[in-house]
Amino acid sequence: MILTVTLNTAVDLTYRVPRLEQHGSHHIREVTERPGGKGLNVARVLAALGHDAVVTGFVGGRTGEELRALLSAAPGSNRLTDALVPVGGSTRRTVAVVDEATGDTTQLNEPGPHITPEEWAAFLTAYGELLPGATAVALCGSLPPGVPVGAYATLVREARGAGVPVLLDTSGEPLLRGLAARPDVVKPNIDELAGITGTSEPLRAAREARRRGANAVAASLGADGMLTVTPDAAWRAAPPARLSGNPTGAGDSAVAGLLSGLVENLPWPDRLARAVALSAASVRARVAGEFDADAYAELLPQVVVTDQPLAA
Amino acid sequence: MILTVTLNTAVDLTYRVPRLEQHGSHHIREVTERPGGKGLNVARVLAALGHDAVVTGFVGGRTGEELRALLSAAPGSNRLTDALVPVGGSTRRTVAVVDEATGDTTQLNEPGPHITPEEWAAFLTAYGELLPGATAVALCGSLPPGVPVGAYATLVREARGAGVPVLLDTSGEPLLRGLAARPDVVKPNIDELAGITGTSEPLRAAREARRRGANAVAASLGADGMLTVTPDAAWRAAPPARLSGNPTGAGDSAVAGLLSGLVENLPWPDRLARAVALSAASVRARVAGEFDADAYAELLPQVVVTDQPLAA
Repeated sequence: MILTVTLNTAVDLTYRVPRLEQHGSHHIREVTERPGGKGLNVARVLAALGHDAVVTGFVGGRTGEELRALLSAAPGSNRLTDALVPVGGSTRRTVAVVDEATGDTTQLNEPGPHITPEEWAAFLTAYGELLPGATAVALCGSLPPGVPVGAYATLVREARGAGVPVLLDTSGEPLLRGLAARPDVVKPNIDELAGITGTSEPLRAAREARRRGANAVAASLGADGMLTVTPDAAWRAAPPARLSGNPTGAGDSAVAGLLSGLVENLPWPDRLARAVALSAASVRARVAGEFDADAYAELLPQVVVTDQPLAA
Repeated sequence: MILTVTLNTAVDLTYRVPRLEQHGSHHIREVTERPGGKGLNVARVLAALGHDAVVTGFVGGRTGEELRALLSAAPGSNRLTDALVPVGGSTRRTVAVVDEATGDTTQLNEPGPHITPEEWAAFLTAYGELLPGATAVALCGSLPPGVPVGAYATLVREARGAGVPVLLDTSGEPLLRGLAARPDVVKPNIDELAGITGTSEPLRAAREARRRGANAVAASLGADGMLTVTPDAAWRAAPPARLSGNPTGAGDSAVAGLLSGLVENLPWPDRLARAVALSAASVRARVAGEFDADAYAELLPQVVVTDQPLAA
């Protein structure tokens, strides 16, 4: 099984409004509720690809109960195992307000429950027990209040100690600290990469992230696809056309593509093609953690992967 | 006790953001959760004024459990009785996004659970059993899906049949239908009044609402106070100064002022002064259903009530 870690799980609410007006009052016509947090989205895409996934992280309160109920009712839930660790605080909500006039989304993210040192210790124990059964582990998203900023560095080291390949998908200081523990793959988007390396030129920034500790860097370029730098080579993968739709969750689908390719021992160009096709196919889906299977099948052979110069 | 009816109860979430940016992503720093829906706010203000209040309406799902927990923990809860009727659907959420840069609020209201004919019948039974113990009843807010549009007309007639004074605070077609059943008081704001009478001139619109069935009309004029037309007289009540703050819940505080004045047999000008002072004092509070007690005590003697011409 593939283990996904989501320390800041969420109940994701999507509100569709005919037009979002600042300082206006809106009657929501349609409310969608989904189990959320990046690692949960990754796990749901993995399940849809036929992989067994175990999800861990924190869960608590009535919103936590809601999250677990949504997770057990999600498509592909027979391939998903809930190994979330209970905490005293309440799981956060995120609200995505979709403006139907423009298709744009305004995102409101609650901070999440405060995690106590005892809860963090309980998580580390659970994580240590799950690792030996994992073929790969993904560490995803932001840290809830109370979790040490070096949390991902700790989790990366544990995974490496257990011989389990580890992918890190976060941003800012937690990413910077995590890099130093030498994860197998990091998957920042170009803004996150610029934030930690100080350069927005993708190839240069990806090389810099490798220098800081990542074995391979797979940088999301948004609608332009993905750039990867490994110790031996560099590639760029581009979708056949820019797709319009909801980009929420596209990055999580890309992580599922990279991880599934890793455990299937695909060559890097094939992992990249899968990540880019899944990402594009999820832009067509209405909610994060899902993708349009027909679009994926159609897009996969059309992704163009090109070699990039490895050295500066 | 005073009975308040809230057919579309809610868990009210308030998100404070440094600045709301359309199509941006926001990390919420502070989340406030309150038991919501107009009648619940009215009941909380009544409790703070020393009146016993019974709340009824619909409640369901995990959000409904949350609502009941919040209600039983609310200030003044020893004066509040929960007589909500359980339903199969889930109580809605409302999200108020407060832009701290401007103080303005963007409101997102979920539609509420679909009420079945059986659930509506169960409510009517519960309402009929509560009425004999009530000194007054307030019917507040929007109708959830499934409730007949003539619901308030039915509830007004029942109250009148039981000899209980009834105040109606709603808008649109439910207000228009409710008026025809001859409620003792309606409390529209000036936009709601214009919506059903076709005129935005307050005195003319209030008279028209009386002609359509209300015994007395107390129209909220926002920061300008309140205008009332009864069978015998008309008054306008104005706060000493325009207060800035969060207007959410100001109308509910006004309803609590009118109702408490009614059951205390205050003359109309005193009821109006109380409604306007409470309304202004709640603009100073951070959340709906609360008011600044010091501001209320200070404002009450300063409200100026003036006679208005009764005839056109």
